[in-house]
Amino acid sequence: MDATSNSETPQDTLYDEIDTFFESAPPLKDGPDISRKLKEFIERNSQSTGKGASRVVCVTSGGTTVPLEKRCVRYIDNFSSGHRGAASTEYFLKAGYSVIFLSRRGTCQPFCRSLPEDPLLECFEVSKELNVRVCQPHSEAVRTAIGEHCAAVKGGLLLKLPFTTIFEYLQILHLIAMSMKNLGTHAMFYLAAAVSDFYVPWKSMVEHKIQSSSGPLDMRLVQVPKMLSVLRKDWAPVAFCISFKLETDSKILLEKAEIALKKYNMHAVVANELLTRKEVVIVVTSSEKISVHRDKTEASADVESPLIKLLVEKHSSYIEHLDS
Amino acid sequence: MDATSNSETPQDTLYDEIDTFFESAPPLKDGPDISRKLKEFIERNSQSTGKGASRVVCVTSGGTTVPLEKRCVRYIDNFSSGHRGAASTEYFLKAGYSVIFLSRRGTCQPFCRSLPEDPLLECFEVSKELNVRVCQPHSEAVRTAIGEHCAAVKGGLLLKLPFTTIFEYLQILHLIAMSMKNLGTHAMFYLAAAVSDFYVPWKSMVEHKIQSSSGPLDMRLVQVPKMLSVLRKDWAPVAFCISFKLETDSKILLEKAEIALKKYNMHAVVANELLTRKEVVIVVTSSEKISVHRDKTEASADVESPLIKLLVEKHSSYIEHLDS
Repeated sequence: MDATSNSETPQDTLYDEIDTFFESAPPLKDGPDISRKLKEFIERNSQSTGKGASRVVCVTSGGTTVPLEKRCVRYIDNFSSGHRGAASTEYFLKAGYSVIFLSRRGTCQPFCRSLPEDPLLECFEVSKELNVRVCQPHSEAVRTAIGEHCAAVKGGLLLKLPFTTIFEYLQILHLIAMSMKNLGTHAMFYLAAAVSDFYVPWKSMVEHKIQSSSGPLDMRLVQVPKMLSVLRKDWAPVAFCISFKLETDSKILLEKAEIALKKYNMHAVVANELLTRKEVVIVVTSSEKISVHRDKTEASADVESPLIKLLVEKHSSYIEHLDS
Repeated sequence: MDATSNSETPQDTLYDEIDTFFESAPPLKDGPDISRKLKEFIERNSQSTGKGASRVVCVTSGGTTVPLEKRCVRYIDNFSSGHRGAASTEYFLKAGYSVIFLSRRGTCQPFCRSLPEDPLLECFEVSKELNVRVCQPHSEAVRTAIGEHCAAVKGGLLLKLPFTTIFEYLQILHLIAMSMKNLGTHAMFYLAAAVSDFYVPWKSMVEHKIQSSSGPLDMRLVQVPKMLSVLRKDWAPVAFCISFKLETDSKILLEKAEIALKKYNMHAVVANELLTRKEVVIVVTSSEKISVHRDKTEASADVESPLIKLLVEKHSSYIEHLDS
């Protein structure tokens, strides 16, 4: 979700664009199943409001795709390993939050960050007695991945929902927001996914594979409506909302983060630069800009640890302020 | 690699296009390491020519990406699960071939096809004694995946090389072709990867993330040079070469396969349609069109089993014919 348009989109136009987007989207295949899972998850994890009430965060992670053909052979993808979202999910769980993890299929999963690229084939071997066993150097990482992941999912604290396309992402995000409405200020949205800025409306999309016979390919993509506005205003008006701003050019980063903060009325925007994003991020709020650094004295430390600590504190202040 | 251009590209123009492509490509990061691995693999698997000589096949698998920005945030991707290439690799190994498996990072790997989407987190659990063990329903699939995969890699019969971008793919394919030259007719190329037809030349690519502020996005992509011609003519003039033609529109499929066969002088083109590609393929050669069907009486049978059987027979005839 980008926030670079300085020319304001009038509200009516925005709602028209959103209607067009959702009407033109292919229907979600397992919508009722997702709704049921969400309902159960929220019921299990919501206690009556007050000091001891549980908090739930929706973490989005990985990049969305934009199909260029209906029977999809080609699509535009947004780069994101999903590392940020997976790491953040672990720290939110440690901080006592329940997490709805909306992530791109195949991207990094919580508790799996220290595993090699292809863990199944690189971490295991079959013994002479035909038993499958973990290879020694990876045993700790594998045990952590499987153990902590299972504990979180089976304990009902982690709900994982996968997406691929921008159409799936925004439809599921809408369902999540609806299901979290009753949580009031105890709900948080942590929107770390890399969401496409442009798409080809489903109706104007070609049915068959684009042919390469006629010289260069010219494409026109239209802007994805700025759904952050609607999330904040209509879908989740009381939730604590954090969005991300990734740029490759440090010169424009903070300016863009501030524009996004104001335009979408976010509670905080996490600004990060592609090349240094694992070392430092800047949390931009209406009153301050806080640089958050990875603890360099510890090799395995990551920037998400102090980042989530800070955001949890901000969320606490927000709850206290609004609920008092 | 598409074959739809009916207007012939003159040879000189093609070589110019190829020079431009490779000159404009970012250099391969681990080129020397890949060359060393290939040299060792071919030395181990090449015996003196004659009846008992070993055969080596290069199987390409998965889709290539085309970066739209140098510091890559967005890219165009070609859909391919890599299922065809992974399955075919298994059958080539069973038929006694050594396999160089050039596959897109993260796509389906040989012997792993019957595993769930996220095998590590879905097939394993940690016991009370903190041992990692396979969950019962998946034990056979996991043992096969790890056992057969390890046996092939450790036995030196399977060399896996990953790629992501079109630039990496074509550069590595070139290295493979060079390393296989001495194998003569015993080399096969089985080009199942879904290769981008269009790309943005590295030099004309923008440095930073494309901004979404200025309305719709208009993009112009140029055609990837038809590298199949060069592979067949210069890189691997004696090898047995199979390419694939995937279409979503059955009406144009066979015509396109025949054009590709002639234009690139392939020994066979495997024609397949997106929706039925797991049930049936048509092997198109200069003299015949052979429909190959999955054995429907067996639930776990796949179309790659009879397909590879047929292609191995064709390869044998080819070797006999040329070496006699």
